[in-house]
Amino acid sequence: MALIVHKYGGTSMGSVERITAVAKRVAKWVRAGHQLVVVPSAMSGETNRLLGLAREINASDTHSPEYRRELDAIAATGEQVSVGLLALALQAQGVPAISFAGWQVAIHTDSAYTKARVDAIDDSRIRAELAAGKVVIITGFQGVDPEGNVTTLGRGGSDTSAVAVAAAIKADECLIYTDVDGVYTTDPRIVPQARRMNTISFEEMLEMASLGSKVLQIRSVEFAGKYRVPLRVLSSFTPWDIDLATEARSGTLISFEEDENMEKAVVSGIAFNRDEAKITVTRVPDTPGVAYQILGAVADANIDVDIIIQNIAQDGRTDFSFTVPRADYQRAIDLLKGDVLKTTGASTVVGDNKICKVSIVGIGMRSHVGVASQMFRCLSEEGINIQMISTSEIRTSVVIDEKYLELAVRALHRSFGLDTQPQDESTGA
Amino acid sequence: MALIVHKYGGTSMGSVERITAVAKRVAKWVRAGHQLVVVPSAMSGETNRLLGLAREINASDTHSPEYRRELDAIAATGEQVSVGLLALALQAQGVPAISFAGWQVAIHTDSAYTKARVDAIDDSRIRAELAAGKVVIITGFQGVDPEGNVTTLGRGGSDTSAVAVAAAIKADECLIYTDVDGVYTTDPRIVPQARRMNTISFEEMLEMASLGSKVLQIRSVEFAGKYRVPLRVLSSFTPWDIDLATEARSGTLISFEEDENMEKAVVSGIAFNRDEAKITVTRVPDTPGVAYQILGAVADANIDVDIIIQNIAQDGRTDFSFTVPRADYQRAIDLLKGDVLKTTGASTVVGDNKICKVSIVGIGMRSHVGVASQMFRCLSEEGINIQMISTSEIRTSVVIDEKYLELAVRALHRSFGLDTQPQDESTGA
Repeated sequence: MALIVHKYGGTSMGSVERITAVAKRVAKWVRAGHQLVVVPSAMSGETNRLLGLAREINASDTHSPEYRRELDAIAATGEQVSVGLLALALQAQGVPAISFAGWQVAIHTDSAYTKARVDAIDDSRIRAELAAGKVVIITGFQGVDPEGNVTTLGRGGSDTSAVAVAAAIKADECLIYTDVDGVYTTDPRIVPQARRMNTISFEEMLEMASLGSKVLQIRSVEFAGKYRVPLRVLSSFTPWDIDLATEARSGTLISFEEDENMEKAVVSGIAFNRDEAKITVTRVPDTPGVAYQILGAVADANIDVDIIIQNIAQDGRTDFSFTVPRADYQRAIDLLKGDVLKTTGASTVVGDNKICKVSIVGIGMRSHVGVASQMFRCLSEEGINIQMISTSEIRTSVVIDEKYLELAVRALHRSFGLDTQPQDESTGA
Repeated sequence: MALIVHKYGGTSMGSVERITAVAKRVAKWVRAGHQLVVVPSAMSGETNRLLGLAREINASDTHSPEYRRELDAIAATGEQVSVGLLALALQAQGVPAISFAGWQVAIHTDSAYTKARVDAIDDSRIRAELAAGKVVIITGFQGVDPEGNVTTLGRGGSDTSAVAVAAAIKADECLIYTDVDGVYTTDPRIVPQARRMNTISFEEMLEMASLGSKVLQIRSVEFAGKYRVPLRVLSSFTPWDIDLATEARSGTLISFEEDENMEKAVVSGIAFNRDEAKITVTRVPDTPGVAYQILGAVADANIDVDIIIQNIAQDGRTDFSFTVPRADYQRAIDLLKGDVLKTTGASTVVGDNKICKVSIVGIGMRSHVGVASQMFRCLSEEGINIQMISTSEIRTSVVIDEKYLELAVRALHRSFGLDTQPQDESTGA
């Protein structure tokens, strides 16, 4: 008997029929002798419907805490409905079940409305109901702050809720049921040869998530890393009555054990992001504080900065480059051309919003030299010019012209043997 | 400056436009210097949509506490959305506002899911937010039980929520905004001459509500009586920008002061109910316990009994009559013809489901003799046969053939001077 957390996304909860299928799947796990906690999202479309109503009523001053407090109270109802419906669906299967809203558990968060962070989870009520033989169903996406206000964790927050609950009750595994069947070596829409990984290390998953793979909310991966919660991403679209042992080994396990198999692949996956633009401030005086003068202004305008590059200075001046979300490109350019040029004494601001970022990710890069240079050679052989380079311990990213995106991803996928190399076939859980 | 509670029904909250109109009306009261607590219902149709989803998911065992607990958690979300939207709508009007769900106030109830009763309301958070200059918006219809489970108060429960909140904070008046403009001497669809009352006593309102007038949930009237909350029923369909003093005097005030004006009308209103059927068990042995043997069986089958008549016995036997909801008529007949006839030794069970109940209500009946006989004479002059009679201190009800309903109501309305007699024109608040 294991203690298991299941998380189901909005599509999996999208209709009465889908909810019933989820109930049957959960019932299968219960009948196999496991204790189950289930964290469902709101029915698909519901959160957007609710936020749409709020915007229709009041579209001004949407950043005030007063506004966002009400927005969270409204948005949180979507999950409250879906946990209640899932409890009823389980009862219809003859499985005792009880639902809880975030404040009932309680899932304690800070007061940062619309993007709150989980501080602590009280596991006493969960444990009591599990001990009473019930499936415990807990709202995703929401919590309660120290003053008893309802908070939400931001888009994709249900992943984080599930992982946080799994950590709190020390679950044996947290299964994230979603509309894809696992984590792939790269996006199959770009590279048809992309293959599902059976296992990916926690660090690699963190890089993949931060680089734009939408499979898991990055904060849920961070949470899983901090509390060492074994995570599995798998499909909720397999028939609910498939063999449980098969289901338990399906998808992709995000593992904390660096076993031998995982060492085999130097590069595990290719991530990319077309949603960026690059900006360069040229001939910036090489004096202390100048980086802050540039990036402080950008941060004050609530613009996220990703890659930052500053090379060594020549004749007392340097070029300072960084990337921003493409939607914020023009705003950032205008900002810099105004005060920042004057304050810093830099020459010009130039930029390009037709770029993309391509990254290779692999825990094996730690112990294998020459991985980055293989990446650069591969791109060079395809005639692709590299505009910026940024590296971490297990990742190398390059910025290139966006028209080369598909070409680069396919070439790298092939070059690092991902098209054919058998992935780790070990099976967890 | 007064402390005022506004309650708005589902139709008043039925769309973004209607919610904005409610916000503008509330803002008008705030700008006139009043402190406001607002209790809105769910947007019209929302509660039915949610209950429909629940029934689609699970239509079996709907009476179990486990089922009803989930049903309440689901249904309560309708009000949580409407309080949040109303808070945003008020913020859009530049009026600081904050919403609370039942558990946040907290509105403490017992654990009778789907029909919980309010035990106590904590007024500390309400008072703190009012003192901070905010409009406090509280979900109707819902509360929280001692174990922290969400409960609902049953259909129309938002009236009771509003009155209970008004009692807890000792509000100066509780205004129930609805889709009619007050309480009428009788249903204007039957008697075009029916007139809106400016004032009605609490006891009369209780009788009118229990006799089928749908203006207020009867429990809200009981609550208002117990805590002496001045209630006013008025229309939410007047333009929001009508003069506040005019609005404050509109509708019908349910008053606890028996002033001179109220004594004027001996009969205040004519109520009726077509939804009943009468049943007679004939020649019942006149022995102790026989009433219980008959009505106990009916109550066990969850059938409500209204009027009960037992006349004195002759030759040791009596006829025992009562009325039941028309929908339960056949079930009650079948039940009685079975075991009950045998157990009691009565002769037969006869009944009629083509009857109606017509009642005159008036606090003046206490001090005026001959009111009932005037009623009987009036009906007799119209050739209407009276089948059953039941009285209370301020009410006389008769059961007659339903085909005479309109005739009887119109004749009584005229006979007691309600067509023309000017009603009390005193104005409260």
